[in-house]
Amino acid sequence: MREINIGLLGLGTVGSGVIKALQQNNHNISAKLNAELKVKRILVRELAKERAVKVDAGMLTGDFSAILDDTSISIIVEAMGGIEPAREYILQALGKGKHVVTANKEVVAKYGREILAVAEKMGVEVCFEASVGGGIPIIRPLKQCLAANEIQEIIGIINGTTNYILTKMATEGKDFAAILQEAQAKGYAEPDPTSDVDGYDAAYKLAILASLAFGTPVGFSDVKFTGIGHITREDMVWADKLGCVIKLLAVAKLQAQGLELRVEPCLVPQSHPLASVNDVFNGIYLKGNLVGEVLFTGRGAGDLPTASAVVADLMDVAQTILAARSARPACTCYRNLPVLDQHEIPAAFYLRVAVRKADAILSVNQIFNQSSIPVTVAGKKLKQHKGGSVVYIISDITYTALADVVAKLREAPGVADVSLFPLEGLCADDVVSAKV
Amino acid sequence: MREINIGLLGLGTVGSGVIKALQQNNHNISAKLNAELKVKRILVRELAKERAVKVDAGMLTGDFSAILDDTSISIIVEAMGGIEPAREYILQALGKGKHVVTANKEVVAKYGREILAVAEKMGVEVCFEASVGGGIPIIRPLKQCLAANEIQEIIGIINGTTNYILTKMATEGKDFAAILQEAQAKGYAEPDPTSDVDGYDAAYKLAILASLAFGTPVGFSDVKFTGIGHITREDMVWADKLGCVIKLLAVAKLQAQGLELRVEPCLVPQSHPLASVNDVFNGIYLKGNLVGEVLFTGRGAGDLPTASAVVADLMDVAQTILAARSARPACTCYRNLPVLDQHEIPAAFYLRVAVRKADAILSVNQIFNQSSIPVTVAGKKLKQHKGGSVVYIISDITYTALADVVAKLREAPGVADVSLFPLEGLCADDVVSAKV
Repeated sequence: MREINIGLLGLGTVGSGVIKALQQNNHNISAKLNAELKVKRILVRELAKERAVKVDAGMLTGDFSAILDDTSISIIVEAMGGIEPAREYILQALGKGKHVVTANKEVVAKYGREILAVAEKMGVEVCFEASVGGGIPIIRPLKQCLAANEIQEIIGIINGTTNYILTKMATEGKDFAAILQEAQAKGYAEPDPTSDVDGYDAAYKLAILASLAFGTPVGFSDVKFTGIGHITREDMVWADKLGCVIKLLAVAKLQAQGLELRVEPCLVPQSHPLASVNDVFNGIYLKGNLVGEVLFTGRGAGDLPTASAVVADLMDVAQTILAARSARPACTCYRNLPVLDQHEIPAAFYLRVAVRKADAILSVNQIFNQSSIPVTVAGKKLKQHKGGSVVYIISDITYTALADVVAKLREAPGVADVSLFPLEGLCADDVVSAKV
Repeated sequence: MREINIGLLGLGTVGSGVIKALQQNNHNISAKLNAELKVKRILVRELAKERAVKVDAGMLTGDFSAILDDTSISIIVEAMGGIEPAREYILQALGKGKHVVTANKEVVAKYGREILAVAEKMGVEVCFEASVGGGIPIIRPLKQCLAANEIQEIIGIINGTTNYILTKMATEGKDFAAILQEAQAKGYAEPDPTSDVDGYDAAYKLAILASLAFGTPVGFSDVKFTGIGHITREDMVWADKLGCVIKLLAVAKLQAQGLELRVEPCLVPQSHPLASVNDVFNGIYLKGNLVGEVLFTGRGAGDLPTASAVVADLMDVAQTILAARSARPACTCYRNLPVLDQHEIPAAFYLRVAVRKADAILSVNQIFNQSSIPVTVAGKKLKQHKGGSVVYIISDITYTALADVVAKLREAPGVADVSLFPLEGLCADDVVSAKV
């Protein structure tokens, strides 16, 4: 049986998952390919470290050139994460005519164009199904199965850690900080949770999704993002009263003038398909002008779900090699859409003002009156001496137009807090006429 | 710009959808391919008939050989449906070295092996993404993105007509016959609804899904199926009380001895991902040993959703032609799993006995006692003179073992009706301990 030799870079969660998957399903994979996928060398930082998987010590190396220069290795799996040296190694591997499979969303989001260009020049494949949604099939479906559509919007819950935290905040009635700590203890959040909770991770993934869905180059720097650290329990309770949930959404929409791109916590109606994507699950929802609405859900992270996508990519590349078929075009961009300034796109917002005393709401009303921004009261819970909150819905307004008002509200006497979230997947009327 | 000439067979719902999709998205499709997909000839039965789409009358022909013998046509889209002459035309087209794209689940489910073998021999592509789930990407994801997994089960709601009827029965409290009539008036059900409501359509699609998911030949004749005509409003109400919904499920599971395959109405817990797939939507749920649970949902039928998949297949084949790449292996089967007798696989069942008078339940109990089949009462609504129903849950039993008891129950004095549905996606204990 023919062997396809693989060089694996990194033996952390993803790398170990790939080894486990190849060991566990070896029999089926070989039968399907009529060839064996064989990991020949593994690049690690520490040769002596104890590993989650059993690998022959002789396979480990600390020297990338031992893999790069091994002409028997035809596919490199990059499972290191981070930018350097991952980017450099990917480019070198492609430059040597090796195919590359990567799970690294950061490197694809930031250096995808450069990487795809080199792959195309060298006539090799570069696959990154694992970079978004873990094992959920989404990269290939966008590139192929949905290619006939003009995609109108793609909205994802594409970070499992934040979705877990938000789900627990909503169901257990605890604060962000408490749930984050629990998530860290369970291994659902990293010791340094910045990349997840501040929205970086979702922004990397949105850049990748949007560039495939809309056939236009989108990089990480094109995506505005906000994390979930400022979401309070109180806003979750109000969202529920309004028939909504708060989710960290990665949103890309085709507008008349260009692309709308943003990652931020939004209010979504409970009837929206994404509203019931809970815990560590990911969900990717899209609308195409032929297919209509489609939703993909599944586990977006974890060693084996990610390995599911990496090994599928490996099998796909292996088939190209075995049949001596030419590589497919790496880049699917065919146009250059401008990226719009998110702050200038009209939207509907939920705005909650918390006051220390009920009568502070008078100065709040004054600020709204002076701004001539029409607001609708969607909910109110005020006690004379303890204060409380008023929730407003403001429709068809840009963030820029709202920012000035929000700044004034924050400084108004008696105002304790102001929270602001866009409404997604419903018009403001739906909320205002809701059960509050 | 290069042109890829297409011969379209049939100009009904699917054929017109393909024309509409190519017209509507022509600009994007050409830009993505750097070539034009051009429908050159269309095979129709009646040349003079009025059409849902505008096509040049000169393109229409009643003679298949005018398409078959046109060497400038490299791809055939079969959108006729039914077995003959669709099967014959597909085989002839492949035999002439033309690639084939089809939306015809019946022909693929019944003659897939024969068709794939000819495609493989001729080195051409045969694509059928549109045959299951309309525009929902599922064929390619199973062939490629999930290929590294041992799929453990795949459960689908893959017939939109029956899902629409069941959803309306559950929400509007009307009987099957009334809703079917409404669905026919709205065009959601055919004038002759047999293929949908009796389960044929779902069985064709399950054969296709199972053969891809498990890498083993599965034909239509391997699938046992039951329709939805016998489902009563009363069973729907009981299902709801038990925390379940009744759905027509297409189930394929990998068991130790082989494949379990069946299409039948089942009770599914409301918390199951498929339970909220409603109206004409389709949902395909699967479990893989790496990826875990994945769910795909979207519109499973309609002219444009189906065309979304057909045109994506066309673009894929066009890229193979444009790059002069060799065709991929048509068949993905790599093993021969036996198909189990569904009646011999232990399962859990919901069994409702309706009696005309309350004391008739005594003879029901006697039959259960004599059979020594352990039953648990999950619900009861009996009035002395009007009778009523008792719902039993029976666990870990084969249909064969149950059939004899069910026959006796049906003949017992005072018994008006017996209904029997398997429980899917939960263990019997979950139901018994439910809110009844």
